Amino acid sequence: MTTQAFTPQSLFSERILGVPTSFIREILKVTVQPDIISFAGGLPNPEFFPVEAIQQASDTVLTKDGKTALQYSTTEGYLPLREYISARYKSHQGLDIAPDEILITGGSQQAIDLVGKVFLNKGDVVAIEKPGYLGSIQSLSMYQPNFQGVNLTSEGVDVEELEALYDRTNPKMFCAIPNFQNPTGLSYTERTRERVAEALVGRNTIVIEDDPYGELRFAGTRSKSLKHYFGAQCVLFGSFSKIAAPGLRLGWVVAPKPMMEKFVIAKQASDLHTNFFAQRVMYQYLLDNDIDAHIKRISEAYGKQRDAMVQAIEEFFPAEARSTKPEGGMFVWITMPENFSALKFFDVAIKQKVAFVPGTPFFVDGSGANTMRLNYSGASPETIREGIARLGKLMEEFMPQVA
Amino acid sequence: MTTQAFTPQSLFSERILGVPTSFIREILKVTVQPDIISFAGGLPNPEFFPVEAIQQASDTVLTKDGKTALQYSTTEGYLPLREYISARYKSHQGLDIAPDEILITGGSQQAIDLVGKVFLNKGDVVAIEKPGYLGSIQSLSMYQPNFQGVNLTSEGVDVEELEALYDRTNPKMFCAIPNFQNPTGLSYTERTRERVAEALVGRNTIVIEDDPYGELRFAGTRSKSLKHYFGAQCVLFGSFSKIAAPGLRLGWVVAPKPMMEKFVIAKQASDLHTNFFAQRVMYQYLLDNDIDAHIKRISEAYGKQRDAMVQAIEEFFPAEARSTKPEGGMFVWITMPENFSALKFFDVAIKQKVAFVPGTPFFVDGSGANTMRLNYSGASPETIREGIARLGKLMEEFMPQVA
Repeated sequence: MTTQAFTPQSLFSERILGVPTSFIREILKVTVQPDIISFAGGLPNPEFFPVEAIQQASDTVLTKDGKTALQYSTTEGYLPLREYISARYKSHQGLDIAPDEILITGGSQQAIDLVGKVFLNKGDVVAIEKPGYLGSIQSLSMYQPNFQGVNLTSEGVDVEELEALYDRTNPKMFCAIPNFQNPTGLSYTERTRERVAEALVGRNTIVIEDDPYGELRFAGTRSKSLKHYFGAQCVLFGSFSKIAAPGLRLGWVVAPKPMMEKFVIAKQASDLHTNFFAQRVMYQYLLDNDIDAHIKRISEAYGKQRDAMVQAIEEFFPAEARSTKPEGGMFVWITMPENFSALKFFDVAIKQKVAFVPGTPFFVDGSGANTMRLNYSGASPETIREGIARLGKLMEEFMPQVA
Repeated sequence: MTTQAFTPQSLFSERILGVPTSFIREILKVTVQPDIISFAGGLPNPEFFPVEAIQQASDTVLTKDGKTALQYSTTEGYLPLREYISARYKSHQGLDIAPDEILITGGSQQAIDLVGKVFLNKGDVVAIEKPGYLGSIQSLSMYQPNFQGVNLTSEGVDVEELEALYDRTNPKMFCAIPNFQNPTGLSYTERTRERVAEALVGRNTIVIEDDPYGELRFAGTRSKSLKHYFGAQCVLFGSFSKIAAPGLRLGWVVAPKPMMEKFVIAKQASDLHTNFFAQRVMYQYLLDNDIDAHIKRISEAYGKQRDAMVQAIEEFFPAEARSTKPEGGMFVWITMPENFSALKFFDVAIKQKVAFVPGTPFFVDGSGANTMRLNYSGASPETIREGIARLGKLMEEFMPQVA
């Protein structure tokens, strides 16, 4: 018998060794100190969590049907909840999505992981917005794809660039957040959506439409879902995290039936099914409360926070700083002159007790050194103004050093 | 521009195409009809779900700290819950496990998936009990390992066979359920555990100890955890599903620090973190209630159900049928003569309104055609007796046809 010594690091999978330490995790550790004004987070404002209504819903579910609510359940998710989501797509967006085209997941993040499980072989080309959502990049990284970034413009993804990428590499999927994207706050115009459809419909590819923020609109009008244009070619994600509460970890995947069968297998392999108690509580909450009114309250508040941030940026940031002006969601994106290092500026800012997320981790090609993500949903308009003023002052001092 | 037509089946990953349709899912669909006596399930008895205590815990958490409980939280899980688990390992099993060696997961099933993510490259050899837990087989299948089954004896895994397999193929991991295994109900004797350790400690491999049933003992005495023998070479899973309620989807992984870092990355990529509300409710429940007394009540009831099943098997099954006599857990395993087809017998039995799970899916090499899994936690002693009597009568009629 030969024995090889136990060396755990030699046992790790290729996929897990390929993941860099999460820069944002490290940043968030620094920014939790209470005296810091943090624009680094990505959390919904807990002031709007419907705590009492959830408490009521939880009581109702456990009183009426506790034993079932606490038992194992189906992989697909609670049917009445899926019916509710289906009906809401119809009434709010005119989309025909059957309940059996919906699978309840542990938040949208799990939906991304399931997409990786169902579709990705090592080396498959994945087209993703540049900058793109870091959670998608991290989650799909586990499946070792070949990421190809496509630039975002103020009107949404750069369609020429997307089409050229498809002609060149035929990606297996295109990952898009067309409404109030994380990290930029940008949305695709209706015309961009049409053009993306003209470019990709009928190709042998799928479009992943991640839509956690779409309902958080405080300005402008809603555009059509990519699902409207792509039909069975689209896998659509939704989430209760931003419109109700993220701690319950409830999201969903919409996929056409032949794909749904595979998603169910992947979901079962991942965790059997999503927390059933949470599904039941959410459904009861939706039955007993006016979620539209609730979403309106959140959106209005976020609109005020966004106004405070955009106004303060105009007032306090140097003229060279370009900023997005989102019509919804939770983020503003700042682009500084080419030679600006957001990473170095982070060190300067944190010493003055203001935090943000440097943009590079959002770029699959490692670019974006001069960009920053600012979150406004987590601070009051007054605090936002104070924090932006502080950042602006620091920028003025910082910029000549790098120019 | 060339366009290839949209053919979704061509886009699926190799891993998902490699998963056969879940036989057990299909069986469970048949067996949910209310007039069927089903031994096919694997569900804990809902009569013992602490519904009122969970309701009280849920109220307390939302009243005291609702906004935090409904917010995003850390990937590792709620620290006080991890401290509780750590302290319980110490007090109940004498194991020294630090809270930061514990990660809260969406049930043990997710723990298995994380093991696949963290360790498995395609083609890696995975040693697993034969028969083995189907959930592990399905979940790890996603990572396309080379499964090698090792037979179980009445004393636990066949150590000679395990050692020979290691000498031959050097598996990356050995997946074991040493206490009241699913599907067999068998446990490893203390001597078997020692011998497994003698065979594998110091080799470059890890031992996955899945222990969802270990606390559900109604006879005999507890053996030492494999963790005791393997230390940092062991990844240990635990779960609240069988001792509290499975609908909350709460389990955990114990892993030494260098591995835990990778588990955290994999967990974050999978779903950011486990339902935080459920973690808070479970912790509150554990604080306010005597879980040991609760586990004792469950175990005593399962003991009576097991007695009813084992006695009825002795009384009604043909002499050729061999049965395990578990000291805990939820399952009895039946081995019939070589030429018996449990699959064909299933069709006979279901017509007479009794269901069980044919054993083949639990064997990674496709053997086990003459075996069956019977669950006793889901039916009363009277119903168990009636169902076993019915099965026994059918076996007598069925067996000559195949002899």
